[in-house]
Amino acid sequence: MALHTPRTIKHSPHLPFGDRQDGPWYGRDILSVKQFTRSDLDYIFGVAAEMEEMVRRVGSFDLLKGKILANLFYEPSTRTSSSFTAAMERLGGSVIPINEVRYSSVSKGESLPDTIRTLEAYADVIVLRHPEVGSAELAAKYARKPIINAGDGIGEHPTQALLDLFTIQQEMGKINGLTVTMVGDLKYGRTVHSLARLLTLYDVRINYVSPDILRMPAHILEEVQAAGTPQAEYDSLFPVISESDVLYVTRVQKERFTDESEYEKVKDAYIITPETMQSAQEEMIVMHPLPRVGEISMEVDDDPRAAYFRQMEYGLYVRMALLAMVLGKS
Amino acid sequence: MALHTPRTIKHSPHLPFGDRQDGPWYGRDILSVKQFTRSDLDYIFGVAAEMEEMVRRVGSFDLLKGKILANLFYEPSTRTSSSFTAAMERLGGSVIPINEVRYSSVSKGESLPDTIRTLEAYADVIVLRHPEVGSAELAAKYARKPIINAGDGIGEHPTQALLDLFTIQQEMGKINGLTVTMVGDLKYGRTVHSLARLLTLYDVRINYVSPDILRMPAHILEEVQAAGTPQAEYDSLFPVISESDVLYVTRVQKERFTDESEYEKVKDAYIITPETMQSAQEEMIVMHPLPRVGEISMEVDDDPRAAYFRQMEYGLYVRMALLAMVLGKS
Amino acid sequence: MALHTPRTIKHSPHLPFGDRQDGPWYGRDILSVKQFTRSDLDYIFGVAAEMEEMVRRVGSFDLLKGKILANLFYEPSTRTSSSFTAAMERLGGSVIPINEVRYSSVSKGESLPDTIRTLEAYADVIVLRHPEVGSAELAAKYARKPIINAGDGIGEHPTQALLDLFTIQQEMGKINGLTVTMVGDLKYGRTVHSLARLLTLYDVRINYVSPDILRMPAHILEEVQAAGTPQAEYDSLFPVISESDVLYVTRVQKERFTDESEYEKVKDAYIITPETMQSAQEEMIVMHPLPRVGEISMEVDDDPRAAYFRQMEYGLYVRMALLAMVLGKS
Repeated sequence: MALHTPRTIKHSPHLPFGDRQDGPWYGRDILSVKQFTRSDLDYIFGVAAEMEEMVRRVGSFDLLKGKILANLFYEPSTRTSSSFTAAMERLGGSVIPINEVRYSSVSKGESLPDTIRTLEAYADVIVLRHPEVGSAELAAKYARKPIINAGDGIGEHPTQALLDLFTIQQEMGKINGLTVTMVGDLKYGRTVHSLARLLTLYDVRINYVSPDILRMPAHILEEVQAAGTPQAEYDSLFPVISESDVLYVTRVQKERFTDESEYEKVKDAYIITPETMQSAQEEMIVMHPLPRVGEISMEVDDDPRAAYFRQMEYGLYVRMALLAMVLGKS
Repeated sequence: MALHTPRTIKHSPHLPFGDRQDGPWYGRDILSVKQFTRSDLDYIFGVAAEMEEMVRRVGSFDLLKGKILANLFYEPSTRTSSSFTAAMERLGGSVIPINEVRYSSVSKGESLPDTIRTLEAYADVIVLRHPEVGSAELAAKYARKPIINAGDGIGEHPTQALLDLFTIQQEMGKINGLTVTMVGDLKYGRTVHSLARLLTLYDVRINYVSPDILRMPAHILEEVQAAGTPQAEYDSLFPVISESDVLYVTRVQKERFTDESEYEKVKDAYIITPETMQSAQEEMIVMHPLPRVGEISMEVDDDPRAAYFRQMEYGLYVRMALLAMVLGKS
Repeated sequence: MALHTPRTIKHSPHLPFGDRQDGPWYGRDILSVKQFTRSDLDYIFGVAAEMEEMVRRVGSFDLLKGKILANLFYEPSTRTSSSFTAAMERLGGSVIPINEVRYSSVSKGESLPDTIRTLEAYADVIVLRHPEVGSAELAAKYARKPIINAGDGIGEHPTQALLDLFTIQQEMGKINGLTVTMVGDLKYGRTVHSLARLLTLYDVRINYVSPDILRMPAHILEEVQAAGTPQAEYDSLFPVISESDVLYVTRVQKERFTDESEYEKVKDAYIITPETMQSAQEEMIVMHPLPRVGEISMEVDDDPRAAYFRQMEYGLYVRMALLAMVLGKS
């Protein structure tokens, strides 16, 4: 698939903006989990681990001093927006925050390509969150500066998938050989779809636990099977909790059920409580893309296996890595 | 009371984020004026005076270079938000501005503790403005990074109280021995309650001037009396203007009166005009927490005793001091 | 006219904020195109050209390190706001972004002068966008720190006019001797009015192409004539396209027409297409203040004469120059 091939380096006589750049990822876009090979992931996680080491030692450093990120959010997402802002600032760079596009003249009839070409006159890299599927790819088609997709509707959110996988690697020390159990709403959850895809690049086993109407979509199951990754579906956590190395929890939303009594019947089966944790391995980790609203009991937060807040921190390191890479500094 | 005792330093193996820190305030929260002893105030104002000196000499300096402030405002307050942003930036640090929480996914059902634990994965310190009383304390309970309360509803706004007191000290050269007259709405004014509390740590005399229905609440009067601070109530400025060293003005809002004719009768009595200033001492200062809407005539602005815009600047220095202190740099 | 005379340098014993400043523009306001002489423009464009050179060589540099810009937008304008933010950040300075004034306490009855005097307690320079004509001048009257007008209603938007002119100079290598053709809505277009005014300081010829109801206002035509600048009006691009060195396009909005059939009749005559470009000179440039909504076909974007995205970049350099100048660094 075309995305696997490195893209032509973006460069223009009109917009060099700065000192010499280098590195294998310089000028590339981050658009989709489909673009990554296993060796790409190894590279990204290697850089992210260096970022983690540096942040823990010195907090921030000036790798991207003088570089500017345009943080362009057509829909609000404080979590993702703050994470990219912090990532840029911990690397010594600056941010142009653009959070209220819906009120703004750039949205009044202006096309996304025009907005992007305006912002790249000011910035060195653009992070884009947009409600429409395919918008990041459209932006990248017109941009001469690198575009990082921070979520395009029900499409892709590749940096979330990368941080999920990096969390597993850093917390467990490896990915190969693990059993990853996804629980909750597997039908509409963009994050579990992307994670399942990326996991097929490793030697893992995947369990899916969900109510019948929220099962993992057939096309994802087919992709995983085609990759030769062992997988199995369940409607209860009970048979798989003790064999799981990673428990990836997502929210079962009432609105997904047409029959409310159906929701009432199943909802408690997918809530993680201290009792759930008693059946789990000593070394298991619990993950969640957040926000959580009740699907993991707050009493679990103090369990050392609760990795969901540390997951946010791994997200910082992954985004630092990606910014440094596409700006030619890693 | 527990808040007077220094809190355990917040620290975690997961989140050191940077170089060695030190100082007596490292990792502490700023939640309430009740937490400060007289010696705490001396320390804070000493650091704030150094900040003032440095800003006047060099504008900005890199004491907090590489540190990140998450400026989390659940309700808009341009004045306070801008002041903290400037304070962080003048110390060489960076800011994650989060101003639109009401539209954002972090507010969609996510608990405040979860939002705080997410942001501390990115930032070194969190400034919180929230409409609910007690929210800053709740945030601090869960956070491993320091929390600074920038106003929690009708609860506390401790940095406002500190800047008010620092203004008096810097403008008058001392606090002990002064007569401070508070005028206007003393019933609902959060700032005058906090200021009265802090003033009991000094040797001062306090006058309260207000319409009958907007008198200082009994529990504040009792606190002040219990501390042995002389105080007196008036319904007119006339008898006390000439003995006042500090005139602290707040707004009398029409909405507070059920009987509009009552409002019309009293409103002019609490407006500061050039005529008011003629009865005042040569060395008196006029303060106001701002915004003002008519309660001080614009003709007073050019009077050198009008200290309310300088008060904003002292706020910058106090907030610089607090940020440097809780990050272990002062 | 008073604005031509350099203003008294703003300075106050209360607010020096930093190291020694210098330079002929230190402390001045940027309020109106009427304030600039030809020699002012030469100076500004000289500094802007240095900024361009520096950005292309090193991206960013620390000329304004430690300085703070308050970016105060009472109405949203992502383009202008982002441009000033990037300008300040590429000079090593910081920004206080204030984008949501309408929700904020500073707008609740507080006067513009009070808001300005509050912000100058925190910042070194204020960029102001406000819906009311004359607001920038009002702000400057009260401010001790420099004010840059980023658009006050249908009044002035001087930095847009400067960047338009700088674009012409940089793209064509000169301004004298050129024929500049303005096309579209010349009646309501603030940008073409200001540009026409500034062009009278040079030896140029101006063509106006518009539907009859959207002709250039008489008072602008009179100003241009009084300056001795040759000008002519047309209702079609056809007779002048081949003699034009610069084609400055603005949008013809349906809402301007009371009779929709009138709009339908004329609208296509003012759309720039590849066919239009075939009649144009090899060295002509096409400009547009953006956003564009159909008045220049996207097929024109790849034509090297399409200068409208480069125009955004020249805007960055002009705003960098102005910030450096009023802060005494150029």
